[in-house]
Amino acid sequence: MALICRCLHQRLGSIQSIGVKCLSTSAVGKLDPLEPDGPKVETTIPGPKSKELLKQLDAIQQAGSVQFFTDYVKSQGNYIADVDGNVLLDVYTQIASVPIGYNHPKLVEAAKDQKNMSCFINRPALGLNPPHDWTEKLQASLLSVAPPGLNQVQTMMCGACSVEHGLKALFSAYMVKQRKGQPPTEEEMVSCINNLSPGNKPLSILSFKRALHGRTMGALACTHTTPTLKLDMPTPDWPVATFPALKFPLEDNVRENKEVEKRCLAEVRDLLETWNKKGKPVVGIITEPIQAEGGDNYASAEFFQGLQDICKEPFKIFNTWVGDPSKMVLLEAVVNVIKEQNLLSNVVTTGDYMMSELKQLQKKYPGLLTNLRGLGTFIAVDLPDASKRDKLLRDIRNKGINMGSLWDQSVRFRPSLIFQKHHVGILMDRLDSVLSDLHK
Amino acid sequence: MALICRCLHQRLGSIQSIGVKCLSTSAVGKLDPLEPDGPKVETTIPGPKSKELLKQLDAIQQAGSVQFFTDYVKSQGNYIADVDGNVLLDVYTQIASVPIGYNHPKLVEAAKDQKNMSCFINRPALGLNPPHDWTEKLQASLLSVAPPGLNQVQTMMCGACSVEHGLKALFSAYMVKQRKGQPPTEEEMVSCINNLSPGNKPLSILSFKRALHGRTMGALACTHTTPTLKLDMPTPDWPVATFPALKFPLEDNVRENKEVEKRCLAEVRDLLETWNKKGKPVVGIITEPIQAEGGDNYASAEFFQGLQDICKEPFKIFNTWVGDPSKMVLLEAVVNVIKEQNLLSNVVTTGDYMMSELKQLQKKYPGLLTNLRGLGTFIAVDLPDASKRDKLLRDIRNKGINMGSLWDQSVRFRPSLIFQKHHVGILMDRLDSVLSDLHK
Repeated sequence: MALICRCLHQRLGSIQSIGVKCLSTSAVGKLDPLEPDGPKVETTIPGPKSKELLKQLDAIQQAGSVQFFTDYVKSQGNYIADVDGNVLLDVYTQIASVPIGYNHPKLVEAAKDQKNMSCFINRPALGLNPPHDWTEKLQASLLSVAPPGLNQVQTMMCGACSVEHGLKALFSAYMVKQRKGQPPTEEEMVSCINNLSPGNKPLSILSFKRALHGRTMGALACTHTTPTLKLDMPTPDWPVATFPALKFPLEDNVRENKEVEKRCLAEVRDLLETWNKKGKPVVGIITEPIQAEGGDNYASAEFFQGLQDICKEPFKIFNTWVGDPSKMVLLEAVVNVIKEQNLLSNVVTTGDYMMSELKQLQKKYPGLLTNLRGLGTFIAVDLPDASKRDKLLRDIRNKGINMGSLWDQSVRFRPSLIFQKHHVGILMDRLDSVLSDLHK
Repeated sequence: MALICRCLHQRLGSIQSIGVKCLSTSAVGKLDPLEPDGPKVETTIPGPKSKELLKQLDAIQQAGSVQFFTDYVKSQGNYIADVDGNVLLDVYTQIASVPIGYNHPKLVEAAKDQKNMSCFINRPALGLNPPHDWTEKLQASLLSVAPPGLNQVQTMMCGACSVEHGLKALFSAYMVKQRKGQPPTEEEMVSCINNLSPGNKPLSILSFKRALHGRTMGALACTHTTPTLKLDMPTPDWPVATFPALKFPLEDNVRENKEVEKRCLAEVRDLLETWNKKGKPVVGIITEPIQAEGGDNYASAEFFQGLQDICKEPFKIFNTWVGDPSKMVLLEAVVNVIKEQNLLSNVVTTGDYMMSELKQLQKKYPGLLTNLRGLGTFIAVDLPDASKRDKLLRDIRNKGINMGSLWDQSVRFRPSLIFQKHHVGILMDRLDSVLSDLHK
């Protein structure tokens, strides 16, 4: 049985400083010299132009989730510009997928570089005809930042696609073991094509409550956030375990949290036994290192080691494109910037400062802010309820801060890696002002 | 119940002339003036450099399907260049996904255009913050070539992702109807999150034998080509109907083919009844207009109208990126080139010529070629068995033609839309030579 720990790295370039400790903190100036000095709010957001464009888009597709239309040419560094002339400090960054800010000069350079041109306009079927420098590109980008011991890599289209193929690899690996090196029977080969047993196996995957792994059918079966995603969908009978609900701050709740994690591991063992007895053997466990969409829920290294102890590890993966080399060009530039500018160290510095500032705010508004939690600048905090949380988000957007909601009653901070102390200053100023209003 | 007719258009720019009749055929010269005059073969393929690169790639990922490493900078128009100095006429085009040839000047222009730059380097979460010109781009690209009556569009990441979300839309739409406008019950809302009924519904989708819709779990449940894709995967109990196996040439087998299609439609009706009785109601039927991967299998317009009669039509669709605007920049350029150069007319002209030349070859080698079938330049033909087919592909590659295998014993031609009569000449010359050897 294998453990898939779906890494936040899987999102292109969304390299957050999870568990990374940087010892040296280089003295850096403004990481993006081109960005503005602060937000600028000209209209309520969405403004009239955004509203007009929304009407047009809504006529050709479901557009209910759109917040505002963006001017990506004018967006720069930590600042996102909208079509109405507003400029917001962005601590949400396209659901945490803009690692080094908007229009970073190194990305402009990579896209303009003549030798990358063919990569943007000729999309290869990587499984058949990879480009000459494919291995090199993989080594310079993904593998250069892979955890120790992970020396192989398979690109895919997106997170859900990666999860789907990861699950298939688990099913295959499990059956190869079961067959002890023997080939599948003719009956298995013929029956599987029409979704029939014995070729179609009732294997299962264990996932955790409040997990989000994607919205395609296999990934969705491992996703347990809101009914919006799941209602009415046919889903396999796979086991779902409780993820530890730790109390914050961690240092004040050590013993209690340890007990919670112990109970969760026991539940995992029970579920495995139940499903194996049912004849639906569990071939793998899938988990996020931090349950992000589900509420920024953390568990200790010991918990994950406990899961690992329950499991062990091992792979038929192919589609037309199998990923996109043009994204690797960008990722290579991103990784280089992260290294050259020592951005992980910046994240630690900014994150520590941001956390201590948020702690002050939590003290100042104990009735409004609780359960402050985070790693680096990947931070969340709870409001008393959804309506206060939603009001905070609306109000702070109109003061020039773009941030995101999370779970029932939380807000999340997902700034880029070039987010610095002076940005924290702007964020805290606006947050204080909005909280003060909310407190009245 | 709804019919999803998975269109070949879904593959970015892979716009083949399916059922398109062009009345005017403009007199065009060489559609890509930069491309070479013919193939050039310097080594056996894969050559030594490809072999060396394969060894390197194989060390970091499963690379068994790789044919040769490609020099995408040197590839031009209808010609694909490899790393060993070989240049092949490409009638396979990255599994039919290079619509207007390699390094088309209009694509270079689009990628170099300053106003498109931000689109390549700032990937938006389209569901939250679409770019200012998103509606415009959708209209200039996808909607400008949409079939009449289809005036709404939802972008996704790739074909499988589109199918997955299409299926989810069917499940949702079916249940909205079942509830007659009433909201879901609290019990449904809570149970669905953990894959439990009543929120988790045992709904089903009917698909066809030999269909390929993708490799993620929902799409894979509708895919029925080879055991390689399906073996050991847990798959829902969904009905699978027989797709008509027509005899070619169509004009000589009219009555028999009509009977075949009638039997297939009757089977669809039987399966719907059986599954509905089982308590696993069929909410939709998914089919390809031409079953490509499954053997280039065709059915008549009457057959699809028969399916449509069995069904009717009607959507919760979201993920982080919901597609990629940089691909829309390229698609817009592709669509413009297709219109400006009247490429669909070129495909009809080239296709007619190619078909008549292939008919001659079929007459010349009746023991080797059968079941010639196609639309435009999207053509397939059967060999007597897999080993002869594989030898033909190996031999013709070493004479400078890149083409693809199909199903048990067929070959498929998937040239780009700029494939012209003189390319057909080169292809037929090499094909004749290889068939003549194979005949001995």
